[in-house]
Amino acid sequence: MNKFSSNRAQGIKPFYVMDLLARAGQLQAEGRSVIHLEVGEPDFATAQPIIDAGIAALQQQHTHYTAALGMPALRQKIADYYLREYGLEIAPERIVITPGASGALQLVLAALLDVNDEVLLSDPGYPCNRNIAQILGAKTRAAPVSADTAFQLTAEQVDAHWKSRTRAAMVASPSNPTGTLIAPQALRRLQQCVAAHKGFLIVDEIYQGLVYSGNKFTALQLEEEDDNLIVINSFSKYFGMTGWRIGWAVLPERLVEVVDRLAQNLFLAPPTVAQHAAMRALDADCMAIFDSRVEAFRQRRDYLLPALRETGFKIGAEPQGAFYIYADCSDFSRDSFSWCHNLLESEAVAVTPGIDFGEHRAGDFVRFAYTRPVEQLEIAVERIINYINKNQ
Amino acid sequence: MNKFSSNRAQGIKPFYVMDLLARAGQLQAEGRSVIHLEVGEPDFATAQPIIDAGIAALQQQHTHYTAALGMPALRQKIADYYLREYGLEIAPERIVITPGASGALQLVLAALLDVNDEVLLSDPGYPCNRNIAQILGAKTRAAPVSADTAFQLTAEQVDAHWKSRTRAAMVASPSNPTGTLIAPQALRRLQQCVAAHKGFLIVDEIYQGLVYSGNKFTALQLEEEDDNLIVINSFSKYFGMTGWRIGWAVLPERLVEVVDRLAQNLFLAPPTVAQHAAMRALDADCMAIFDSRVEAFRQRRDYLLPALRETGFKIGAEPQGAFYIYADCSDFSRDSFSWCHNLLESEAVAVTPGIDFGEHRAGDFVRFAYTRPVEQLEIAVERIINYINKNQ
Repeated sequence: MNKFSSNRAQGIKPFYVMDLLARAGQLQAEGRSVIHLEVGEPDFATAQPIIDAGIAALQQQHTHYTAALGMPALRQKIADYYLREYGLEIAPERIVITPGASGALQLVLAALLDVNDEVLLSDPGYPCNRNIAQILGAKTRAAPVSADTAFQLTAEQVDAHWKSRTRAAMVASPSNPTGTLIAPQALRRLQQCVAAHKGFLIVDEIYQGLVYSGNKFTALQLEEEDDNLIVINSFSKYFGMTGWRIGWAVLPERLVEVVDRLAQNLFLAPPTVAQHAAMRALDADCMAIFDSRVEAFRQRRDYLLPALRETGFKIGAEPQGAFYIYADCSDFSRDSFSWCHNLLESEAVAVTPGIDFGEHRAGDFVRFAYTRPVEQLEIAVERIINYINKNQ
Repeated sequence: MNKFSSNRAQGIKPFYVMDLLARAGQLQAEGRSVIHLEVGEPDFATAQPIIDAGIAALQQQHTHYTAALGMPALRQKIADYYLREYGLEIAPERIVITPGASGALQLVLAALLDVNDEVLLSDPGYPCNRNIAQILGAKTRAAPVSADTAFQLTAEQVDAHWKSRTRAAMVASPSNPTGTLIAPQALRRLQQCVAAHKGFLIVDEIYQGLVYSGNKFTALQLEEEDDNLIVINSFSKYFGMTGWRIGWAVLPERLVEVVDRLAQNLFLAPPTVAQHAAMRALDADCMAIFDSRVEAFRQRRDYLLPALRETGFKIGAEPQGAFYIYADCSDFSRDSFSWCHNLLESEAVAVTPGIDFGEHRAGDFVRFAYTRPVEQLEIAVERIINYINKNQ
């Protein structure tokens, strides 16, 4: 091999869904109507009041850099949001604005992990977590999870997998790819367990608010004196601001200064217009728009979940948010990668194979992202049934 | 020490100018009129046609993710720009859109350097280069440069400092903090030298266009079959789009695929509205606006450079762009850090001490950023003269 780029870069596994996306594009160009259930992006555009706030910010020439950790007014407004929505008093100094949750994740991992340090994750899980750690020269240790624990890491697993170089454990609730939640009691046990190992618990709340039970929850409600909890959040999903690239993290106070220095060097600052627009997203009247979208997602899930089960997919842990269903397709195929490719070729339905989320039983699972209207989901299910019948 | 964060994070030196900025803010709150010559951001807002393009993009609801390497239309438009302005045919596939030049720098260093690999830099130089390498667990080797070589790295230095783990050398033209250029012949020698070591040459052209000679130049004009040249550029400085966070890199074709995978994981995508606005920035009529701003910067330099020399600063290498003058203050002080702090306290003029740009003779230098109108520069010079007279 002609090695011209770094091992760290070459070692990053591609997202297999990218090939599917490219092929779906070709099929569309050939005139076929592809149904996209592979993309983790809501179909809704950003809500109009937020767009208007972005336009107003541009009209007012807000085009210069902000502070590296974001505008103080936005940090304050997120603190106000936690007070209004969760009754929590979070010091705005602990809230740092980032270029998307991706930026937050990178800052947090760089702040905690040295080269060869480890972070403990679930398998399946969001693949960028593993890849960002690898880009930083750090390591991930993946604990296999199943429907038995709602695909969530447990305190017992943390104890079993914690090594001398482990610095943190990470969970997501709601989770990508499974749409499952972690119960508050389970999360508290996790936090205590991680604290006993003198580590940090990173909680990915990127899909916060996209939950159908109506119960609002943040890991910050559990916070004790341990001071080892890090929450990552985003304006992309619930707030519908994907392309703006804006997110945040809530940090223990002692981490803020090093994260500031990291952010100054890695990003200089988050995008200014996105920060101004995000201010508007936190207003109560905008939340009403988002909540109506959550209701639309709930209707989609309430259609798709039983429809997939009737079709023969096994879905053991109830997906309760985050517009994803992680479905066990092993009754049709133990090679979900090929199954997804063949489904796309045969029926023009695009879904993501389990391999993009880890290795544990990856061939037995596919992820459905219900980011399309119910009418399209109905057609997709028809086509999938057709495909399965053809191949039995 | 209670070590709770990573060594990589704790090892990042703070930017000393941040303390100066904070203190300047306090002085302003106390009613003093501070003249800011420390900030590396043009005082101009983004040009109106670009703002209008951003507004139009929002009105058209361009709020979703783009491809990780940016919109194909923007990559094509940058290719068109190289053809129109430099007569160069660059394949658009080699042009990757990034969240600011910071994003480009991180992608490039992550693509080239493994843990403990080295990149060769000049001292003084832009401090984020060193810090991003460190965040990645890689190393920098800094070659001391002086006015004798226009503060630019030479081929001889590359030969002298190249080690078995060195993978790349990096130069900037125009340079921050010195405002100096690298001559095309010197750059060609550098490229050949780096190629002989089988390394990559990274050329930071972030201040491209902000040059007073009128001679347009890009390192891409030198490109030979070596295929080892990487150019980093930005919409922040010449194009005046700092807060939008949008830049680009031109890569050898063989690096594009790994950079794509890195970008997917680190950033997902550059900000969408910024990409649409940047499309407009590349139109010829906008360039006329930028060129009139370059003329304003030239007038400022033409005032400030002789004024500082008359005041007693030694400026050996002519600053020819990038709104910076790196001035030798050793006739007044060999401790430029304290000198800057005292100047701010005494005269309310903020400039950046050499320590922010490296270690080589850092105490002998200060950086003036002429990002304020000539009238303010005149007052600043008066105050500096006053300060020097008081302290003789």
